[in-house]
Amino acid sequence: MPRTIRAVHQVARPQGVPTADHFAFVTAELADPTEGTALVENLYLSVDPYMRQMMDGGEGRWGLNAPLEGRSVARVIESRTPELPVGTVLLHRQGWRTHALVRPDEVRVLPDLPGVPLSAHLGVLGGTGLTAYVGLTRVARLAPGEDVFISAAAGGVGSAAGQIARLLGARRVVGSVGSPAKAERVVESLGFDAAFDYHDGPVTELLRAAAPEGIHVYLDNVGGEHLEAAIDALHPNGRIAWSGAIAQYNATEAPAAPRNLADVMFKALRLEGFLVREHLDAQQELYALVAPQIAAGRVVVEETVLHGFDRLVDAFLGVLTGANTGKMLVALKPE
Amino acid sequence: MPRTIRAVHQVARPQGVPTADHFAFVTAELADPTEGTALVENLYLSVDPYMRQMMDGGEGRWGLNAPLEGRSVARVIESRTPELPVGTVLLHRQGWRTHALVRPDEVRVLPDLPGVPLSAHLGVLGGTGLTAYVGLTRVARLAPGEDVFISAAAGGVGSAAGQIARLLGARRVVGSVGSPAKAERVVESLGFDAAFDYHDGPVTELLRAAAPEGIHVYLDNVGGEHLEAAIDALHPNGRIAWSGAIAQYNATEAPAAPRNLADVMFKALRLEGFLVREHLDAQQELYALVAPQIAAGRVVVEETVLHGFDRLVDAFLGVLTGANTGKMLVALKPE
Repeated sequence: MPRTIRAVHQVARPQGVPTADHFAFVTAELADPTEGTALVENLYLSVDPYMRQMMDGGEGRWGLNAPLEGRSVARVIESRTPELPVGTVLLHRQGWRTHALVRPDEVRVLPDLPGVPLSAHLGVLGGTGLTAYVGLTRVARLAPGEDVFISAAAGGVGSAAGQIARLLGARRVVGSVGSPAKAERVVESLGFDAAFDYHDGPVTELLRAAAPEGIHVYLDNVGGEHLEAAIDALHPNGRIAWSGAIAQYNATEAPAAPRNLADVMFKALRLEGFLVREHLDAQQELYALVAPQIAAGRVVVEETVLHGFDRLVDAFLGVLTGANTGKMLVALKPE
Repeated sequence: MPRTIRAVHQVARPQGVPTADHFAFVTAELADPTEGTALVENLYLSVDPYMRQMMDGGEGRWGLNAPLEGRSVARVIESRTPELPVGTVLLHRQGWRTHALVRPDEVRVLPDLPGVPLSAHLGVLGGTGLTAYVGLTRVARLAPGEDVFISAAAGGVGSAAGQIARLLGARRVVGSVGSPAKAERVVESLGFDAAFDYHDGPVTELLRAAAPEGIHVYLDNVGGEHLEAAIDALHPNGRIAWSGAIAQYNATEAPAAPRNLADVMFKALRLEGFLVREHLDAQQELYALVAPQIAAGRVVVEETVLHGFDRLVDAFLGVLTGANTGKMLVALKPE
């Protein structure tokens, strides 16, 4: 019989930084699964910086007063399809709610990876980890022995990227973070060789100090001044893989582009944007590289988990202000 | 016996736009060739936008009151090396003078290409043509059926690029130029589908009108506002091959970077600088593609030739202000 579920809707478009007032917690009636579908309960909900852009509306983005897109790890609790028996654990995109009806063709059944926590499928083994992996491999083509700079190094993508860069044979891995505690964290626990708090001065100078011999690859998650600093530090033929621009999502006017952009030409650099959804076929490579390292304790599943559906909006607003270390998640049930 | 030759030296560093006062015509004594060298007379001298940057001095750039680097097509008139017999026609880099002593390892003997004028080796078959070819193929990876935008379309690189793009199977080829006459020229004679004078309005609007269906590839020779317009017009996964920035060479302050640079990330674009000297191995491909088309009259050797060594500084200053259509050259002898 139909059940009452909880969901979060967006109820207004933000100008600049979003607040809790742009969201509303609602209840809805969810029908019983029909033939070919399954009812899932969401276990973990993902909140991500890209969602700030979804809030602006437009084609393919979020509508107002409507269900929201978001990645979720869920478990099947009722099924009318043999492909998804009760108990199946899967990944789907009907986030921001407690339950959902799913079809087999819109979910990905998660492999059972011994020694790997479920939440990792939204972090280092999920979209954020895949973003880091694709950026370092397919886009930047990181070679063993090269030096890497990663912005937002304590964030979901960054914390995965630093560890993946190490697995790929990077020599020196340097990160930019938003607080002294995060700088300590990424060096102490995530294997970065050096990290700086970008509030401490001009990023160009901070990066020069942290990577005095320069860098070969920059994984950009923030744009703006960091991009300018990276262009300064890159060796000739250096590569920038650009997967996000948190610093710009909230901007109400055009950001200051790097003043040294012409060095992309003079130094024969490559600045390449990418969308991880165009590289989903790399998922198996990511599992193969990273999952055994998690099980062996050599890769940390870095995450900040808020508990309870009530915390969902807090979690999202937090990820935009850097309240998290590692992947930001909301856990709905004890595992 | 030693001979008196003529040369041009740089005598001062420019702030902004260079003038004739930054150069001096001088005479010098050139010794007889020693064992293993040959004496050449220069037939054609190349002047190029990149030389503006050389004028700023620094590592690898031009010194003051010293011989200047520049490409030249020359003929051997005395030889003390069997590798370069008298009459050999070759390419070397001791430009800005009437004669030079060369060693076999610092020249490239030019192939005899039937139906191809010697001057083409400094234009569509030389460094400018190679820049266009490498930019379109190795960097932008132009595919048949794609639409291309070329800035400075009437210049040396641009006039070659438009024709090479056509040979590579481009669908629509659009150019930006600096005068109505040039716009007419590139459409009438060089096979561009459309061209606009960038003085006629915001480049973004002009490009939208010229390429209403957007573009897949942009070959950038100017940077600045053109780059912003191209980012606007590029389809997702579009590519920008960036080989020069004439608009910025004379700038005394940092140029305005594109305000829409973040679209490189949002549209998964690739902005890649390149230096043609890192791709000299593509020369044979260029010959194979273009030389037969020149001989058949299907590729135009577009050039502006000033006659006489006295015109050398004029030619260089002219190329910086767009006085040329096609490759700018100085001819020292009738062929």
